[in-house]
Amino acid sequence: MLITKHEDFNYGSIKLFCGSSHHELASQVATFLGVELSQREIVKFPNENIFVKLGESVRGKDVFILQTGCPPVSDNILEMLIMIDAVRRGSAARITLVVPYMPYGRSDKKDQPRVPITARLVADLIQTAGADRYITVDLHAGQIQGFFSIPGDEVTSFHLLSEYFLTKRHEMYNPTIVTADLGFAKKGRNFAARLSMPMAFVEKRRTGNDATSEVMTVIGDVQDRDVVIVDDEISTAGSIKNTVAVVKNHGARDVYVSCTHPVFAGPAIERLRALPIKELITTNTVPIPPERMLSNITVLSVAPLLGEVIMRVHDGRSVGELFNE
Amino acid sequence: MLITKHEDFNYGSIKLFCGSSHHELASQVATFLGVELSQREIVKFPNENIFVKLGESVRGKDVFILQTGCPPVSDNILEMLIMIDAVRRGSAARITLVVPYMPYGRSDKKDQPRVPITARLVADLIQTAGADRYITVDLHAGQIQGFFSIPGDEVTSFHLLSEYFLTKRHEMYNPTIVTADLGFAKKGRNFAARLSMPMAFVEKRRTGNDATSEVMTVIGDVQDRDVVIVDDEISTAGSIKNTVAVVKNHGARDVYVSCTHPVFAGPAIERLRALPIKELITTNTVPIPPERMLSNITVLSVAPLLGEVIMRVHDGRSVGELFNE
Amino acid sequence: MLITKHEDFNYGSIKLFCGSSHHELASQVATFLGVELSQREIVKFPNENIFVKLGESVRGKDVFILQTGCPPVSDNILEMLIMIDAVRRGSAARITLVVPYMPYGRSDKKDQPRVPITARLVADLIQTAGADRYITVDLHAGQIQGFFSIPGDEVTSFHLLSEYFLTKRHEMYNPTIVTADLGFAKKGRNFAARLSMPMAFVEKRRTGNDATSEVMTVIGDVQDRDVVIVDDEISTAGSIKNTVAVVKNHGARDVYVSCTHPVFAGPAIERLRALPIKELITTNTVPIPPERMLSNITVLSVAPLLGEVIMRVHDGRSVGELFNE
Amino acid sequence: MLITKHEDFNYGSIKLFCGSSHHELASQVATFLGVELSQREIVKFPNENIFVKLGESVRGKDVFILQTGCPPVSDNILEMLIMIDAVRRGSAARITLVVPYMPYGRSDKKDQPRVPITARLVADLIQTAGADRYITVDLHAGQIQGFFSIPGDEVTSFHLLSEYFLTKRHEMYNPTIVTADLGFAKKGRNFAARLSMPMAFVEKRRTGNDATSEVMTVIGDVQDRDVVIVDDEISTAGSIKNTVAVVKNHGARDVYVSCTHPVFAGPAIERLRALPIKELITTNTVPIPPERMLSNITVLSVAPLLGEVIMRVHDGRSVGELFNE
Amino acid sequence: MLITKHEDFNYGSIKLFCGSSHHELASQVATFLGVELSQREIVKFPNENIFVKLGESVRGKDVFILQTGCPPVSDNILEMLIMIDAVRRGSAARITLVVPYMPYGRSDKKDQPRVPITARLVADLIQTAGADRYITVDLHAGQIQGFFSIPGDEVTSFHLLSEYFLTKRHEMYNPTIVTADLGFAKKGRNFAARLSMPMAFVEKRRTGNDATSEVMTVIGDVQDRDVVIVDDEISTAGSIKNTVAVVKNHGARDVYVSCTHPVFAGPAIERLRALPIKELITTNTVPIPPERMLSNITVLSVAPLLGEVIMRVHDGRSVGELFNE
Amino acid sequence: MLITKHEDFNYGSIKLFCGSSHHELASQVATFLGVELSQREIVKFPNENIFVKLGESVRGKDVFILQTGCPPVSDNILEMLIMIDAVRRGSAARITLVVPYMPYGRSDKKDQPRVPITARLVADLIQTAGADRYITVDLHAGQIQGFFSIPGDEVTSFHLLSEYFLTKRHEMYNPTIVTADLGFAKKGRNFAARLSMPMAFVEKRRTGNDATSEVMTVIGDVQDRDVVIVDDEISTAGSIKNTVAVVKNHGARDVYVSCTHPVFAGPAIERLRALPIKELITTNTVPIPPERMLSNITVLSVAPLLGEVIMRVHDGRSVGELFNE
Repeated sequence: MLITKHEDFNYGSIKLFCGSSHHELASQVATFLGVELSQREIVKFPNENIFVKLGESVRGKDVFILQTGCPPVSDNILEMLIMIDAVRRGSAARITLVVPYMPYGRSDKKDQPRVPITARLVADLIQTAGADRYITVDLHAGQIQGFFSIPGDEVTSFHLLSEYFLTKRHEMYNPTIVTADLGFAKKGRNFAARLSMPMAFVEKRRTGNDATSEVMTVIGDVQDRDVVIVDDEISTAGSIKNTVAVVKNHGARDVYVSCTHPVFAGPAIERLRALPIKELITTNTVPIPPERMLSNITVLSVAPLLGEVIMRVHDGRSVGELFNE
Repeated sequence: MLITKHEDFNYGSIKLFCGSSHHELASQVATFLGVELSQREIVKFPNENIFVKLGESVRGKDVFILQTGCPPVSDNILEMLIMIDAVRRGSAARITLVVPYMPYGRSDKKDQPRVPITARLVADLIQTAGADRYITVDLHAGQIQGFFSIPGDEVTSFHLLSEYFLTKRHEMYNPTIVTADLGFAKKGRNFAARLSMPMAFVEKRRTGNDATSEVMTVIGDVQDRDVVIVDDEISTAGSIKNTVAVVKNHGARDVYVSCTHPVFAGPAIERLRALPIKELITTNTVPIPPERMLSNITVLSVAPLLGEVIMRVHDGRSVGELFNE
Repeated sequence: MLITKHEDFNYGSIKLFCGSSHHELASQVATFLGVELSQREIVKFPNENIFVKLGESVRGKDVFILQTGCPPVSDNILEMLIMIDAVRRGSAARITLVVPYMPYGRSDKKDQPRVPITARLVADLIQTAGADRYITVDLHAGQIQGFFSIPGDEVTSFHLLSEYFLTKRHEMYNPTIVTADLGFAKKGRNFAARLSMPMAFVEKRRTGNDATSEVMTVIGDVQDRDVVIVDDEISTAGSIKNTVAVVKNHGARDVYVSCTHPVFAGPAIERLRALPIKELITTNTVPIPPERMLSNITVLSVAPLLGEVIMRVHDGRSVGELFNE
Repeated sequence: MLITKHEDFNYGSIKLFCGSSHHELASQVATFLGVELSQREIVKFPNENIFVKLGESVRGKDVFILQTGCPPVSDNILEMLIMIDAVRRGSAARITLVVPYMPYGRSDKKDQPRVPITARLVADLIQTAGADRYITVDLHAGQIQGFFSIPGDEVTSFHLLSEYFLTKRHEMYNPTIVTADLGFAKKGRNFAARLSMPMAFVEKRRTGNDATSEVMTVIGDVQDRDVVIVDDEISTAGSIKNTVAVVKNHGARDVYVSCTHPVFAGPAIERLRALPIKELITTNTVPIPPERMLSNITVLSVAPLLGEVIMRVHDGRSVGELFNE
Repeated sequence: MLITKHEDFNYGSIKLFCGSSHHELASQVATFLGVELSQREIVKFPNENIFVKLGESVRGKDVFILQTGCPPVSDNILEMLIMIDAVRRGSAARITLVVPYMPYGRSDKKDQPRVPITARLVADLIQTAGADRYITVDLHAGQIQGFFSIPGDEVTSFHLLSEYFLTKRHEMYNPTIVTADLGFAKKGRNFAARLSMPMAFVEKRRTGNDATSEVMTVIGDVQDRDVVIVDDEISTAGSIKNTVAVVKNHGARDVYVSCTHPVFAGPAIERLRALPIKELITTNTVPIPPERMLSNITVLSVAPLLGEVIMRVHDGRSVGELFNE
Repeated sequence: MLITKHEDFNYGSIKLFCGSSHHELASQVATFLGVELSQREIVKFPNENIFVKLGESVRGKDVFILQTGCPPVSDNILEMLIMIDAVRRGSAARITLVVPYMPYGRSDKKDQPRVPITARLVADLIQTAGADRYITVDLHAGQIQGFFSIPGDEVTSFHLLSEYFLTKRHEMYNPTIVTADLGFAKKGRNFAARLSMPMAFVEKRRTGNDATSEVMTVIGDVQDRDVVIVDDEISTAGSIKNTVAVVKNHGARDVYVSCTHPVFAGPAIERLRALPIKELITTNTVPIPPERMLSNITVLSVAPLLGEVIMRVHDGRSVGELFNE
């Protein structure tokens, strides 16, 4: 006789901890879930050693730790690993690491000799520390999923961003999707298809005997069209700057920019401020400090998305059906 | 006092074994290296169990096993794993697996729910069986390197193929690089840059209420130009067939095709035979049986490339400098 | 205060998937359990890559995957590993692999130099893919249990087969158990003891200067007796053929044959058809295609056995007491 | 919607097994928990092979195995590992090893070349056998926790012992804490602080040209004071013997001794019997056979402590708060 | 250019250590190899903790550690693991464990519920401690090789023992091989074939309602024949005692006994002394203390065999060819 | 025949890389070894991702990477792990990590609930990244050796520091060793014994109802004596400050301080500058930036020590004998 189980496997009640990287997002997720953020003390001692002490028992609990890959990057990675260790040694039933922006995603292959594959290293470190699962948003390359042997959920901001553009579409004139990086061509195509817009590409090529000058070419048509430049992240905004310049040179009208991760490193904000961008739409996988916020930046929150996924993971319900249309 | 070592670390003399998948390539590599292929017996019993017996001692030797991911794919994978096990239990000093065409490269991420990441699984199986290193050619995605924790060398046929086109360039009229798949856009750009040719892209988009019909668009200019379609592998040739059709419809002149891996599965040969392709240039990472060979196919051998890499791996000399120009 | 738990540990509700190897047995097990077989799509692409997509969420479920080691053996092994990977990455709570006939059981030791131990390799592959437990029937050698570090349940068809013979015993004249292979002598003794029959052995020895001719000897008495030849599996039926011949030569009357696994490879069916066997009793751990079925073959289903074990594993109840008399 | 879970994660009902090392303590713990000790058969065969057979199913149960590191030490370690293996292969839901006295704690570092770190080895063996967690009392060095990668709970007899001394304090004259080993200085300080007593140290130093003679120095004041010598374990009592001698020489009055682990090896009992110790307070982490018991030894039971921790581990409630004052 | 290597891979000069179990055999092996046994100190402290200190540096050396599975079994296993740990942390280049008699070989499968597979556990412990390879003689079941994932060499005393019987054959009258255990039937056949003798089997069966009485049957012919009883080990000699009795009852003449491992546990020597055995031929994989030696026991040394294998392992030469005739 | 090997195992020629933490020490070591520091490029991108590119091939080389645990601590740890990954994927024969000051040594146990054991985590991260061995100086606790499963060499500055004090001894008046931390009592004793000085201890105890005030006691005699305060590291110098105050209050004359690791975090330098310390003797395991250097600090270089150990590790010669007196 098969004994009827009244509910599915569970790992104890939920505990949501956040590291120091993105308290605001963690709070939004906690609100969405209807739970309090769990107490923890994080101290950076004068000798720069990071110390973590959990403020409540995690024994037998289903623990989620939210930390994102923003600056200070090395501190945040170490802190994340140390938190996992504390939770693991505290005998949690399950540990799910929630990393909205996975650091080092661009170091995902040896494209030249004698370099590391740091994204794989980061995956290994997370597993070594003791995470049982991970949740992340829009990896730089989907293959990074395969760097983990623990199961995980890569969720995408694609629907969030594309829905937003659908509401904007009527304001745009002959809008065209442009990818600033050929590595994003395929994902750019998905935006184009979803928004029923044509595409164009910007190709960058080194020229001259000394390969020091760079020539940008637009492949496809942007003349007299509104342009939506799409990418997964904006780091120093160098590539966006060049792309805006070249599409403008080729006669583009209004320029919109869309990306999941507003990394905004180094000169990014100064560059973005100076550019003729009508609107930059992004998410809060990475926090934007108030002093680096610009008036033409729209930030969509991934908190409901992460919250919904956490809930389903906790309840043992399908995450996949969230993304089926 | 630091004791002077007269030579670098070595793993004993070299042994090159081949599985049943590609004896011809293995022989070419052996000739290049100036060694005999090592003896081994491979039997498939009536119960379909594969049996391997090494014909010579591998104790303390530096063993290379060459097997490629061609049909029968499952048999070749199992045979490869069994050979590694036999060599490992035979106490080889080091085992390097040489897989010119890594199978399951296209299953490299969960791009929909509830599917496996078989490329990572294959990497894990190889490590479980006991390989210490791997050598492969042109992975479907460079990130697959990161699926391995053992070190490896991904070598590329890019120079081989592009050198060939350089010798052909004077015969072509306004040649243009076209990628049939947007996922190959970035690597296509490298061909374009190396050959000083412009680029165009073919974009495929599903349309109609039922998403059953597909529309192909050419982005960029192919009118009245010779076209070189580049990709990493040709499987069923469905994508090549459509690409040739659409560039011809847009006024292209001669069509050349280039790919590393001539997988040529299912209807591929019939499709290729029927297409107006002037020349298809590929390599022998996958064997093409004589009866599936076409007169317009040119096969460049990767044997010297693999041989050179094996030699350097064995000698402890740099592989990276091979690919620096 | 020890908190009273109302039920034992569980891993969520049950999901039973089957690979392509033995749909009929899986259906019988599902019926026994009172569940539906879970949906999955298995495709072998033209390039022979196997693709698996689960048709329902396995998140937090207690998943059982049934696949047996019959032809196409390599495909079935790969498919099994790929299914495990898909289920694992789909975040199942627990994965139990049900392999009624474990492939490569005969490759269980290095009985000559430079050969693999493929049965251990298969165990390692299964664990690498991510199975948490296994269930199997009558391993070629019980020690293969020790090739796994995950826990498992080896169930036996011994009671099923011996009960059947008990109902037949009155029809037999002076029945005697005969083992065709000395490696099965000890297990043969168990049949003899259970059925209260005497034993005889057939010994095979190579002779002549060139060791090419083989002499069969009967040790013990078969003259004028009905004979029950017992073994764990029948592969090419070569050994059965010789055993029947030699017992007949020594004056045996009716010959019965019993084995757990009807592998029936290569010439097996032709040989069995030609032999004077009164009845061959076996189980359905391996499917017998209708065209290879003979009128004197009786197939006993292991479905109730496997179903009962799965039920107990799922419920956390003892499996061992099933086999205590 | 977050599904409300009515209780926390659990691993099935509790099973408490004991090895042969300390049946009495295990019985006390069972009584505390209100459970029966689980049945198991342990046999040491004539060939000295240890055989374990569990007397009840552990499938899906939350199993605790109690074994302490007393003589016969090697047998007890092997037996413990074999029990874990049997429980693991019997498909327990979780295995917690309860080792009141962890053997080989003093072999915790390479303090000279070419020696092992046996305490780490023991931790590795325990994990290899398959324990999921451990519980222990007063490790020789707290760092041994870090030799385990599985989570564990080191509980301390500090409160038990110090509470006892608090009840005795009024009988003592100017009591002073003395550590016999400088490695215990810091923990000795905790006793001194808790009991509001001053401290003194005994320092041992080798002298003479041949370093064969040893000089003991008292640092701090013991003249005309009652002395409480504290240490973690008493092995051969050599160090206690010398310490008592030297404090007596320096004018100490009554001498009390306190330790967690009464290992009492080799000449220990004879030495202790001969020493002018008023009372030796210890615990039952290690059994003291009746014939080695002395009238001035007081044994405090750790059973309630271990029982409470097991209960909380089983229930998923905080263990840490037990030790917060 | 492939750089010519002048010699094969090596792991530094050889070091042979022995544990306390079998100094005599280790000395013989050292003499065979022309090396001194390496210095080490092994102490069993009063608290029964085993302490090992290597007397010479093993850094960069090819270390062999010889320890056999004789009593005190648990001490010898622990000592062996501790020695491996010391050698590993001492930075040996390679560690080969030489275990002439592998302990716990008979605990190689779960032949009843809720028991361990201790032979697999022992293999795991050896690997956890850090051995890179193993060498052993005549495992109880060849499958135990598959319990190791490190490579190893199982050598056999079959040739040693059978050569000895060949020199004796002319003294025997109609000699017949008899196996005392059906599990040894197949290996018994190898002796029969090598010595050109017929075979008989002794079958043991429990009878009566209460299964307490045992009936021994001889299958095959021993009447008026000399009998050679073969087995892998003699533990308590209970099975030998019964076998000798039953063959004598069936009219056998002289009885010879052959086994690889003279474990001689518990009542073994008294039983053997009382039995009408003409000669018992065995090896020194297990030491026989002088007081347990009998005049009719012949001990053949495996030292040359082990020495030759060690030499070949060290030199990177084939071991397999040693056993090919 | 045992083939004579002319030299011991080697891992190819030596390569010494340094991270960004301590270029000066690495240069000294390189000079000692007579090699050039190997080329590498280390960049911290604007997004704070650390990028490493080796400037020379490490294939088949014996690679040493020197990085110490000084600020920026998190960056230095990450950089170290990334360098190891690059070297490992670059196919080095062996990787030895040289960490003169191991970070997070003080987080070596759970001395309160719900905290991590970060020192073990760091050991695991180092192994996960791929180091084969480590070399370090004076771990905070010797047990941290046991956190590693890879072999390693902990070298000590004890001889360096104590030799220095021996040359100073004649200038001191009744010198006494004082430990500022009871956890260092045992190691302090070693200094006392080596320098033939008596000892005293400073004990710190919290008092008052609220445990906020702290009382320092001197145990032993410092009146009218020169005092040498010994510890393993000076972090914020808070403990040194209190110790100096209390020994001065008890009538001490000149105060010397000795420590291995001059961490000098936060307020350390200001505190040290203000203290009446005659001389502070330390080493260069951690760099002291010129602006934080004081005139009464003497820095002894560990470069010859590390260099000698690296040489012996590379040559396969004993390291242990270096530290035997």
